[in-house]
Amino acid sequence: MLSEFDLIKHYFVRPSHAAARATLGIGDDCALLTPTPGMQTAISSDMLVEGRHFFAGADAFKLGHKSLAVNLSDLAAMGARPVAFTLALALPAADRDWLAGFAAGLFALADAHGCELIGGDTTKGPLTICITVFGELAPGQALRRAAARPGDDLWISGTLGDARLALAGYWNEVTLSEAEQQASAVRMHTPTPRVALGRLLAEQGLAHAAIDISDGLVGDLGHILKMSGVGATMEVDALPAGPVLATRDAALRRAYTAAGGDDYELCFTAPAGARAAILAAADSVGTPVTRVGRIEAETGLRLVDAGGQALDLRLAGFDHFAS
Amino acid sequence: MLSEFDLIKHYFVRPSHAAARATLGIGDDCALLTPTPGMQTAISSDMLVEGRHFFAGADAFKLGHKSLAVNLSDLAAMGARPVAFTLALALPAADRDWLAGFAAGLFALADAHGCELIGGDTTKGPLTICITVFGELAPGQALRRAAARPGDDLWISGTLGDARLALAGYWNEVTLSEAEQQASAVRMHTPTPRVALGRLLAEQGLAHAAIDISDGLVGDLGHILKMSGVGATMEVDALPAGPVLATRDAALRRAYTAAGGDDYELCFTAPAGARAAILAAADSVGTPVTRVGRIEAETGLRLVDAGGQALDLRLAGFDHFAS
Repeated sequence: MLSEFDLIKHYFVRPSHAAARATLGIGDDCALLTPTPGMQTAISSDMLVEGRHFFAGADAFKLGHKSLAVNLSDLAAMGARPVAFTLALALPAADRDWLAGFAAGLFALADAHGCELIGGDTTKGPLTICITVFGELAPGQALRRAAARPGDDLWISGTLGDARLALAGYWNEVTLSEAEQQASAVRMHTPTPRVALGRLLAEQGLAHAAIDISDGLVGDLGHILKMSGVGATMEVDALPAGPVLATRDAALRRAYTAAGGDDYELCFTAPAGARAAILAAADSVGTPVTRVGRIEAETGLRLVDAGGQALDLRLAGFDHFAS
Repeated sequence: MLSEFDLIKHYFVRPSHAAARATLGIGDDCALLTPTPGMQTAISSDMLVEGRHFFAGADAFKLGHKSLAVNLSDLAAMGARPVAFTLALALPAADRDWLAGFAAGLFALADAHGCELIGGDTTKGPLTICITVFGELAPGQALRRAAARPGDDLWISGTLGDARLALAGYWNEVTLSEAEQQASAVRMHTPTPRVALGRLLAEQGLAHAAIDISDGLVGDLGHILKMSGVGATMEVDALPAGPVLATRDAALRRAYTAAGGDDYELCFTAPAGARAAILAAADSVGTPVTRVGRIEAETGLRLVDAGGQALDLRLAGFDHFAS
């Protein structure tokens, strides 16, 4: 029988190393972090619930990755550098294989971003994963949702819609070949948080507003527009579709790129004068970016086709309490 | 129908005020905190699961209080000043009465400690509450579990065992009058985190090691002893019993004070020379403290009666994966 303390010690406590960020890590009442002088701390929490955010029986390694990835994506959308995180975990049972897989997926991504697990909680309960992540950034650099300005370009990182397409495949809403299902599922299960791009946009002062796309672009962009008191025109057919979705018809491409969800790409606004610098920054970190519209003083979001004609798409962001 | 965003806006976003700690609070991808120059950040996470940490149908106001109290108790055990917290909440449904009660209990305690809600997450799922709390303290002041020294006195704040007695009453393990059940249940449902005491012990450098008693004194003290590489002799009949438990026989008093659980009192060690200062500090914040034993070089915990005779109590700390 694996006790709570053995579980933490065996799967989550790692040898301390010279680069450790925490002054005091796992094993006391609190962890202690010593902030870098002059820097602000960016903080975000996300909770993932079995049957809601992932299927029962989901692969533990991928779940470890995704649990941290969705939190790092929030830091990316702020332009912050990842520093550390806490993990609170409710588990139906202390299953060694599951724990080993989860920890491996979690730490692989954490190590890639120099983000240290500094504390948390484990308890018995319905499988629920709650991560709180900490980042740093210089005062005034944060990419806030309220900072979009009329005249800004509207940009999207990477590609959209393949995660939603994978879900549609699992639900038999669309027919996918095995290869297509696998390729699109990579985006659904192991999203790539755009941390390096977000940091460059913030540090170089290239972007005004940013948000990460988790509940569908149209809904998430809506938060930027509302909080900034502005509107936008967005060219739906310019939205970069994931490689599997790109082979599908226009109606599905439009629906899943504009309102798919689970993309974890960045949507950001920036002045037209920053175009060349943004393309150079994106290229330097290997993350493609696409210009898809323009911020305008008139409130509301206007969706248009390649010819500039209005599109009346019935799209909605994901709301956890509406379904 | 209450949407996710309406829910957050209506129940958890509060008017900003001059004393706000957060540079940027609820409503963006991350919250932003500006650390006080030169201070360390203390961080703790606790997750509460329905049916595990509280009964199904538990009073929402008290649950709001307790969810934050158990986290503030971790800051108290470190000696840190509360600053802010995040709340991640999985709810089976967006019940307005429940949300209003939970928020009222949560904010009443938060306001009493000047601790600001700066962000979080809400989702549908089995009722689960995950709070991550942030505090500040000066470098070198933290009351660490590993800091107990042979010759230290062993101290307990407040009283122990009434929370466990209330649970025994609910489970019909003991017979309590209605008044006794109510009085003891206050300790179980609305514990008082010893924040002011913890801060004084740290700021005045009075204590060496500290821990908050959540899983039973013997088990939690065991963490101090193990991490400090020391042992202790503790006089079980000197343990301060809660007012209801104090009326019960010695066997029950011994069992529930020594290993009851859910007490959220502080167990701390301090040099004998600090006795007068500790009593004065405790008196200044209205929290009684009791000296119950002594830290010794010989490892292990020796339980003795008032005459110094060894007691062989079969006690165990609470382990979330052992039951």
